[in-house]
Amino acid sequence: MTKVQLPFGMQDYLPEECYNKELSEKRMTEIFTSYGYKRVATPSLEYCDLFTADGAMAGNKLFKLTDTDGELLALRADPTIQVCRMYVTNMSGVQRMYYALDSFEYVSDSNSARDREFAQVGAELLGASGIDGEVELLCMAVDALNAAGLDKFVIELGHVGYFEGLAEEFGLSADSVAKLKALINKKDMLGVEMLFSELGVCEKNKESILSLPLLFGGSEVLDKAAALCNNDKSRAAISRLKTLTDKLDSMGLGKYFSIDLGLVSGNNYYTGLIFKGICEGVGASILDGGRYDGLCDRMGKSAEAVGFGIGVKRLLTALKQAGVWEKAPKADIAFAVIDRNEAAVRSAIAKLRKKNRVVRVFGDENDLVAYCKERGITRAILFDGGPIELNFASKGDKQ
Amino acid sequence: MTKVQLPFGMQDYLPEECYNKELSEKRMTEIFTSYGYKRVATPSLEYCDLFTADGAMAGNKLFKLTDTDGELLALRADPTIQVCRMYVTNMSGVQRMYYALDSFEYVSDSNSARDREFAQVGAELLGASGIDGEVELLCMAVDALNAAGLDKFVIELGHVGYFEGLAEEFGLSADSVAKLKALINKKDMLGVEMLFSELGVCEKNKESILSLPLLFGGSEVLDKAAALCNNDKSRAAISRLKTLTDKLDSMGLGKYFSIDLGLVSGNNYYTGLIFKGICEGVGASILDGGRYDGLCDRMGKSAEAVGFGIGVKRLLTALKQAGVWEKAPKADIAFAVIDRNEAAVRSAIAKLRKKNRVVRVFGDENDLVAYCKERGITRAILFDGGPIELNFASKGDKQ
Repeated sequence: MTKVQLPFGMQDYLPEECYNKELSEKRMTEIFTSYGYKRVATPSLEYCDLFTADGAMAGNKLFKLTDTDGELLALRADPTIQVCRMYVTNMSGVQRMYYALDSFEYVSDSNSARDREFAQVGAELLGASGIDGEVELLCMAVDALNAAGLDKFVIELGHVGYFEGLAEEFGLSADSVAKLKALINKKDMLGVEMLFSELGVCEKNKESILSLPLLFGGSEVLDKAAALCNNDKSRAAISRLKTLTDKLDSMGLGKYFSIDLGLVSGNNYYTGLIFKGICEGVGASILDGGRYDGLCDRMGKSAEAVGFGIGVKRLLTALKQAGVWEKAPKADIAFAVIDRNEAAVRSAIAKLRKKNRVVRVFGDENDLVAYCKERGITRAILFDGGPIELNFASKGDKQ
Repeated sequence: MTKVQLPFGMQDYLPEECYNKELSEKRMTEIFTSYGYKRVATPSLEYCDLFTADGAMAGNKLFKLTDTDGELLALRADPTIQVCRMYVTNMSGVQRMYYALDSFEYVSDSNSARDREFAQVGAELLGASGIDGEVELLCMAVDALNAAGLDKFVIELGHVGYFEGLAEEFGLSADSVAKLKALINKKDMLGVEMLFSELGVCEKNKESILSLPLLFGGSEVLDKAAALCNNDKSRAAISRLKTLTDKLDSMGLGKYFSIDLGLVSGNNYYTGLIFKGICEGVGASILDGGRYDGLCDRMGKSAEAVGFGIGVKRLLTALKQAGVWEKAPKADIAFAVIDRNEAAVRSAIAKLRKKNRVVRVFGDENDLVAYCKERGITRAILFDGGPIELNFASKGDKQ
C-alpha cells in the first residue's frame, strides 16, 4: 500500500480552508491592483546563490538540490529576492509588483511546528520613491489586511540605521553586530549581557543596547531613543521614523502603528525601515517588510526598494479568531437526469450555470432528494421527460 | 555580483504574461465552480513513493531530494495523485475538486526546450459516477477552454481497454505491453515492427497492432476497430467509446471530439477512457485526462475517478495564436502630491480606488504629466492645496 502521510511541515488545503485562503488572497490583491500594482510570478527553483549571496539568507534554511549539470539549486526561499532579479534583468524606473506564491524554509527538526512551505502574498515597490514609497506600502498593507477582514493588528516600525549607528558609535565589529542582532531579535537579553562581558563593552553603552527591546510603543519612544545615541546615523533613523509616523498619524492610521526599535534585523538585506505586523493570538508575525536598497545593486542595477509579505496561513489563523471565516459554498442547485435528451439537459443546465453552482447527482429522484437534504441544498431539478422542479422539502416530510 | 540567470526550464511571469495567465485561470476555474467543483491545494513536496508506487510515474522524471530524516522527497509531479491521497485520507462519496498548481518534471538535458516547472489547472471527480462522470468532465473541459477564449481544439478520445484486450488476445507479456505502449504513443511504428520480429508475433496480429495509430477520426473508426479484435475487453472499450461519443454528439459537441485508438498510454495509471486536447500550432497536448479507478485503491480506499489537467502555458500559446491576448491593464488614474494634507489626499484617493487602478507618481506636476503621456493614462490629479484635475492632453500640446 502506498504511504499516504505527508512529510512534516507540509499540508493540504481542503475545500473550506482553500476557499478562505483564496478569498483573503483575492481581497488583498484587489487592493494591490487598486494601487496600480501588477501581478508577477517567479519560478520555484533558482540557483542557490541568488538567495545566499552577501549573506542575504542563511544557506541552512534553504531546501537545496543538485541539478543535472552539478549546479546547486534552491526552492523559492524569498520572493522579494526573485522580484529584484526580475527587475534587474527586465525593468527600469518605478515598478509596482505583487505576488501570491509559496515559499519554503528548510527546517531540520521534524518535531518543529514550523511550516516548511508557506503561502505568501506580497508587494514590492522598486525604483526611486523615497519616504512616500514607504507611506504607500504601509497604507496598502493596512488596506489589504482590512480588506481581508482584519482590523485588530499592529504594525511595528523600526529602522536598522538606529542600531547600526549605535554599534558603530560603540566600535563593535561586523561579526559582533551580526551576533547582537540575532540575540536582540530573539529578545535574548541574557545572551546580550554575556556577549558584552566577552567583548568588554563599557557599562553605559551596554545600557543603551540593553534598552533597545524596551524601546517600543508610541512616538514618545523616539525621544527616549534620541537620548541614548550620539551619532548621525541613529539620529537620522529617528528623524525618519518621526516623519513617517507623523504622516501615518495625520492620515488617521495611528492606531495601526507603533514603534519598536528592538526590531533590528528581520531579513539581513534590509537597509532602512523595517516593519512587522502582529496580531494577538497568532504566535508569529503576519506581515514582514522593509526597505532593501542594496538588493538590486548587488545584481547589477541600483534601485531603491520597499516591500512586504503577508503570511497567508498566519493571517487565516487571525481571521478565524476574529470570526472572519466562511464555509466553502455549497451548490445552489442540484439535478439528476432520468431521460436521455442530452441536448435539452445540457442547454437548460448551461443557462443555470451562468449564475449558479449547479451540481449533478448521479442517480434517480431518491438520490437527488437525499443529496439535497444532506447538504441543505434548496433547489433541485429532475430531468425526466423535461425539467421538473422538486419540492423536496415537503417530499422529505412525507418520507 | 550575484548570478541573475535562471536554471534551465524555469521562467518568470512578467506582468503581461502573468495577467493573461491569471485571466485564463480565472475564466476556467469559474466554469469548474459553476459545475460544483471546489478548489483544493496540495503541498509542493511529497514522499517520492507517492508518485512512483506501482509504476504510476517514472522515478527519473521526478525532482528528488533527501529530507533531514533520510526520507526521499519529490517535488509535485502530478496533482492528480495528490488529490487521490487527499480523498483517501479525508473524504468519501462523490467529490468534485479542482486545483491550479505548478508541477515539476525533472529533465536532465539542459538543451531540452521542455519546461521543468509548469502551471496546470485541473479537475478531478472522485467516487462513483460511471459514464455520466466522463461526460461531465469532457463537457466541462470544453466549456473551460471556450471560456478561456479557445474554440479551435480537438479532444481525442481513446480507451486503454482496447489495446489491452488485443495484447491479451495475442498473448503478449506485461513487459512487452509496456514497451509496445511507449512505442505506439510515440507513433514509432518501425520500433513496433522490430519488437514484433523479436517476439515472433504472427502477421495478422502484427497488422492489428500496427494499424492502431491509424485508428483515428470520426466514429466510423470504431467499426474498423471492432473488425480487428476478437475479445470481450476490446469490444467493451469500443462500445463504451460509442456510447460516449453518441452522448457528446447529441449535445452538439461533436466538433470538439474525435477518436484516437492509438492513444494507449498517457499516464500509466489510466484504467479506461483516456483523452488528450490538441490545438494546431501548439507542439504538445494542452489537456490530458482519463479514468484512473485504481489510484485511490492502492492507497487504501476504492473510488472510481475521472479527471483532467490543462497545461496553462501551452494554453497561453494557443490563446496568443488565436489573438486572445490582453495587455496588462494600465492605471486608470495617476496622481501626484505637492501639498501636505495627507488626510485629504488619502481620503480622496481611497474613494477613487474603489473602482479604479490609481497610481501615485512620486514627483511634481511635470513628472505626473510625463508619466501619463508615456503610458497613455488619460486622467491625472495633482494635489496642490486641494485636488486639481489636469487636462494634460492640451498641456502636452503646448510643451
